[in-house]
Amino acid sequence: MKDPNRLSATDAAALIVRGELKSEDLVAACLTRIEERETQVGAWAYVDRTQALAQARIRDREPARSRLHGLPIGVKDVLDTADMPTEYGSPIYREHRPRYDAACVALAREAGGVILGKTVSTEFATRHPGKTRNPHNLDHTPGGSSSGSAAAVADFMVPFAFGTQTSSSIIRPAAFCGTVGYKPSFGTINRAGMKFLSDSLDTIGVLTRSVADAALIVEVLASMPPTSFTDLANLHPRIGFCRTPYWLQADASSRNALENSAARLGKAGARMSDLELSAEFAGLAEAQIALSSFEFARALSFERCNFPELISRHLSARIEAGLQVTRTRYDDVQALSVRCRAELDAVFAEFDVLVAPSATGEAPLGLEATGDPVFGLMWTLLHVPCITLPLCQGPNGLPLGIQVIGKRGADSLTLRCAEWIQRELE
Amino acid sequence: MKDPNRLSATDAAALIVRGELKSEDLVAACLTRIEERETQVGAWAYVDRTQALAQARIRDREPARSRLHGLPIGVKDVLDTADMPTEYGSPIYREHRPRYDAACVALAREAGGVILGKTVSTEFATRHPGKTRNPHNLDHTPGGSSSGSAAAVADFMVPFAFGTQTSSSIIRPAAFCGTVGYKPSFGTINRAGMKFLSDSLDTIGVLTRSVADAALIVEVLASMPPTSFTDLANLHPRIGFCRTPYWLQADASSRNALENSAARLGKAGARMSDLELSAEFAGLAEAQIALSSFEFARALSFERCNFPELISRHLSARIEAGLQVTRTRYDDVQALSVRCRAELDAVFAEFDVLVAPSATGEAPLGLEATGDPVFGLMWTLLHVPCITLPLCQGPNGLPLGIQVIGKRGADSLTLRCAEWIQRELE
Repeated sequence: MKDPNRLSATDAAALIVRGELKSEDLVAACLTRIEERETQVGAWAYVDRTQALAQARIRDREPARSRLHGLPIGVKDVLDTADMPTEYGSPIYREHRPRYDAACVALAREAGGVILGKTVSTEFATRHPGKTRNPHNLDHTPGGSSSGSAAAVADFMVPFAFGTQTSSSIIRPAAFCGTVGYKPSFGTINRAGMKFLSDSLDTIGVLTRSVADAALIVEVLASMPPTSFTDLANLHPRIGFCRTPYWLQADASSRNALENSAARLGKAGARMSDLELSAEFAGLAEAQIALSSFEFARALSFERCNFPELISRHLSARIEAGLQVTRTRYDDVQALSVRCRAELDAVFAEFDVLVAPSATGEAPLGLEATGDPVFGLMWTLLHVPCITLPLCQGPNGLPLGIQVIGKRGADSLTLRCAEWIQRELE
Repeated sequence: MKDPNRLSATDAAALIVRGELKSEDLVAACLTRIEERETQVGAWAYVDRTQALAQARIRDREPARSRLHGLPIGVKDVLDTADMPTEYGSPIYREHRPRYDAACVALAREAGGVILGKTVSTEFATRHPGKTRNPHNLDHTPGGSSSGSAAAVADFMVPFAFGTQTSSSIIRPAAFCGTVGYKPSFGTINRAGMKFLSDSLDTIGVLTRSVADAALIVEVLASMPPTSFTDLANLHPRIGFCRTPYWLQADASSRNALENSAARLGKAGARMSDLELSAEFAGLAEAQIALSSFEFARALSFERCNFPELISRHLSARIEAGLQVTRTRYDDVQALSVRCRAELDAVFAEFDVLVAPSATGEAPLGLEATGDPVFGLMWTLLHVPCITLPLCQGPNGLPLGIQVIGKRGADSLTLRCAEWIQRELE
């Protein structure tokens, strides 16, 4: 088989189960692709070639442990691994080797997954970038904070990789790199062994090249029943087109792409309507920044007290701002979030999913910044499942995405609608 | 000054600020008490005498950093410390030395607190006991999982110590050891660097010998405004006497003690009434067990996959049960919790606080088990602030507690009411 690293995870899994593809060959193809491209793309903080191949050979001798059996996985470097360094994107943790695997890593291994290595994270999954470049154009950012995961998946180095999202850290890099990014409902994948940044927001998710692949890995790790994608023809989803209070921060090409897509989805049989959220939602982006900054400043207390000189200027400023947020403001944000989550639950009585921008536009030129997270902030605070789909090319030839947002806990319906949308827009 | 280790933290702090007590002398007195009693009580997993005294001397040369300045603190051994071993109560982590301090530890140091050492936790803060004995009668359990913290504070080894609660792991040992235990509203103290057991429930709190001391440390670490305890005479709190659906699981002496206390509080000026919760609340204890078991089994994936032989029989059974809980059941419990939290918020329109049993009775005889957590389960799931107060002696001469429960986020009012109750019942 030529280039098995280009297979979707779902297809590769089916071939492995039928004995038509060996995990070892799939892993070897991924490693070859990494060797070819890594010096340009810089997606990986660490790859253990020997161990990955050894693991794959063991998987090849076993009966399938789960639908994930034999599939290679990239692990964002804010998730602890006992057998690989875990540096959290920070020089403070150079050559840090945790004592135990994060729960999601241990669960992936238990399910027969093969951990290929650690993907580059920005500093503590905030904004200061690592070495990763956008595989579509090396002069552009891949986005962040799940930079390496997005680039590795987009560049066919691995079929899926873990990401984490506190602001827009799965959705934005996935959109910039032209992959699928799936941030499940808050709390879906167990967070033990993650480097916590913002306890109220941090969500583990995945970057993949298809919706079905995203469903596969999250469902296995979270013990969710499998979502069916075979019966979508008569779905006619009820879709709310939610421009969000930040609509004008998206550039014209993104706004046009979204408007055109909404029109096409309506013609394809979706029951489309516009959704304008109530006035309270307009404060959520600012609220998310206050909440996350407050929590950054506390979660990173050891680092800011002991290694202030090894923290980037950008993160130092966020921490400083977080120390200025009062407890009263923090408590007010938590209360606002609870109210808006309940209100949004009620909104979903009329909609199966919402569609909204994934980012303000294409990946910006340059590697010093990772782009604007504004279109992730509100949804992360609301704890809802979010999936970004590659939509089209923007004016610079770089990917644009569309974000599909579901009801809290209704991940399976959200995945089905996302798959329907992807098929109709292709 | 004789025995400064017997001072309340609040009194010691005032003396330190006025220059009438040195942190070094306070820390030395605590260390002397530990030397005298530790072979019997077994409250500590690790004490670093030299470092604690060195830290205290540095604090004595500085201006006060906060109200916590110079006060010694015990740290439950499920909270990471970079300069002390952290063994999570498990042989799997013998001599484990984390790379960074848990946020609560780093924040305590930043505020001028002196970390005295690590207090004994049961295995991963579940039920399998450590070496700790009840200081009131060494043949009885101190309760768990914050066993060492409760025993150390009760035995005047340290004025306060961190605990964590997932089921009843602060409230029960505090009640059994005759101390104050304070589990703040869920999410009050930052959890980064804690060994996660049940992400949806795990809450960091404190064990102290007074309500004011509990307020002091939690307020400093959580950036909460200080609660005033000087103006309680005219409080006339509205108190709901909530026997809970588990009332008959408390023994007769506990039920009598609670009934008598409620009557006394009414005579003392509280506006008392009985509160019977709606039928849905009756399922919450069972729901808490399903939810926590599901999360244990996933959070401890690395341990159960790699070191099954080093996990106790009790925890192995909990993990096995957790692997049998379906995602649907888990999601149903989360939804039930959200509904009951909202309903309880509304109940608090009529009450300032509730009172309920802290435990089923006195600390049981024997060291093989830590007692029944039933009176903590529901409240932990509901995310409300809970404070146990030492109430009286039971028939075996061991302490009985009373639990004061407040509205989610209304920690300051809950603390004020708890202090009022304590004064009236003394």
